[in-house]
Amino acid sequence: MRITGTFSEARALCSGRVALVPTMGFLHEGHLALVEAAREGADTVLVSLFVNPLQFNEAADLESYPRDLERDAALAESAGTDVLFAPPLEEMYPEEPATWVSLAALSAEMEGAHRPGHFDGVATVVAKLFAGLRPRRAHFGRKDAQQLAVVRRMAADLSFPVEIVGGPTVREEDGLALSSRNIFLEDRGAALALSRGLFAAADAAAAGERSGAKLEGIVAAELLAAGVSAEYVALADAAAATRISDLGREAFLAVAARVGAVRLIDNVWFGPDGSADRGVRLPGPSILYGGN
Amino acid sequence: MRITGTFSEARALCSGRVALVPTMGFLHEGHLALVEAAREGADTVLVSLFVNPLQFNEAADLESYPRDLERDAALAESAGTDVLFAPPLEEMYPEEPATWVSLAALSAEMEGAHRPGHFDGVATVVAKLFAGLRPRRAHFGRKDAQQLAVVRRMAADLSFPVEIVGGPTVREEDGLALSSRNIFLEDRGAALALSRGLFAAADAAAAGERSGAKLEGIVAAELLAAGVSAEYVALADAAAATRISDLGREAFLAVAARVGAVRLIDNVWFGPDGSADRGVRLPGPSILYGGN
Repeated sequence: MRITGTFSEARALCSGRVALVPTMGFLHEGHLALVEAAREGADTVLVSLFVNPLQFNEAADLESYPRDLERDAALAESAGTDVLFAPPLEEMYPEEPATWVSLAALSAEMEGAHRPGHFDGVATVVAKLFAGLRPRRAHFGRKDAQQLAVVRRMAADLSFPVEIVGGPTVREEDGLALSSRNIFLEDRGAALALSRGLFAAADAAAAGERSGAKLEGIVAAELLAAGVSAEYVALADAAAATRISDLGREAFLAVAARVGAVRLIDNVWFGPDGSADRGVRLPGPSILYGGN
Repeated sequence: MRITGTFSEARALCSGRVALVPTMGFLHEGHLALVEAAREGADTVLVSLFVNPLQFNEAADLESYPRDLERDAALAESAGTDVLFAPPLEEMYPEEPATWVSLAALSAEMEGAHRPGHFDGVATVVAKLFAGLRPRRAHFGRKDAQQLAVVRRMAADLSFPVEIVGGPTVREEDGLALSSRNIFLEDRGAALALSRGLFAAADAAAAGERSGAKLEGIVAAELLAAGVSAEYVALADAAAATRISDLGREAFLAVAARVGAVRLIDNVWFGPDGSADRGVRLPGPSILYGGN
């Protein structure tokens, strides 16, 4: 594996069909599943690692975001990464950016409503990675469901010749969706209310429930019972990232909540027939906690 | 020369170092000078031809914009174009675009102030051409001075590995800057006030004048004398596209005015030493008027 901090060297190190996995580092099994998927049919697996200040709407969140390049490099390499692009801030933003890529309609609800400017930052940095690294395929986790919709639409609208591939939400043994921020969790019991609520809603859908309000209510009730106040619970069209009233197309049921100081998001995906994709579950503790 | 209407075929037809000349068609000698410059050191000269609705802030202007693909194809070919990319609307915008690329700071003044949304449309379509066609170099006329600043900054901010090259303003025999819209001009005498004013300002700069207000005043006086009301006259930093008070860096002195139904823009460029680039002048009538 080669490590580089510049776009031009990254391009020079890549050849053939390039599959990109954009990350903000502090890798976990969710990222590694993306790298594994990226390997299929790719000549170069390129992982980018950059904690993008443009997409942080809270300074404290940016400051505390976990960083460990040595750890990430070892994990990326063992997962089959060919090139690790870990640019310094000066390579990404040599000056205050004057250019913003934005998708207002896809950023209006859910994360977009609760994190002002977040998706402008995401769309801008991902456009930059696509422009500067020219991947043929790019892999994003379905855990960031609205982000996936934003990136897909941005790539299509701007005619980037890149295929966007969604990867599964990877969960800890107890159901908690993996997130680099999980290492800061103090009240794990409360955190589990998110996945528990989503699974209960998926069960209800499997039993025939189609109403968005009902499914959202099931999640909200689970959070309420655990003393966790939701920022939102929403059934949304998977492509438009806007709320819908019923199952019946590609959709996700998403929840965001603060558990102590940590803001968590999670979701389950639904096919047009109402079948749920709950992601995959680790058989043991995540590498986030120092295991291997 | 090959003609194609799709991004994927355009990419397939290009090889090696691709130089792109983005146009809205109805080509004139200004475009052809860009094509000629594009040929230097390029393996494929790619001309795009698309009247981009996103950048028209007036429906009437979009509707009346001159179009003649057959004429343009012949001119592009004779100038040395290898691939002509002339996409239909459905290829460029298969659905209402949800993604906008914008540079607020560079779009606040001059054209940006008088044509709301214009540079969002320009930045978005040019980002799309860069993303979908992957040129190594792209050529834009200096007549659209603010557009050149917007495109340069957009390409740099988004890390497109493309070199932006400015081409000279080409003028008719009488000094009028070439524009596809010139074919609609009824009062040519009045139209000449723009270039006459700019040249007078360049003369003043050559004689030592450094004040932006003075230089702008010279242009404004020339327009006033011809009975033409200016939309703006502005001395601007060439990279930031914001007004400056004095010569002393790369700058342009720009003017916009309506002459009858036709909106005209023109400018002269100034080096840091105050030397002016007035563009180049045709020895005879432009091909715009049916000559060859």
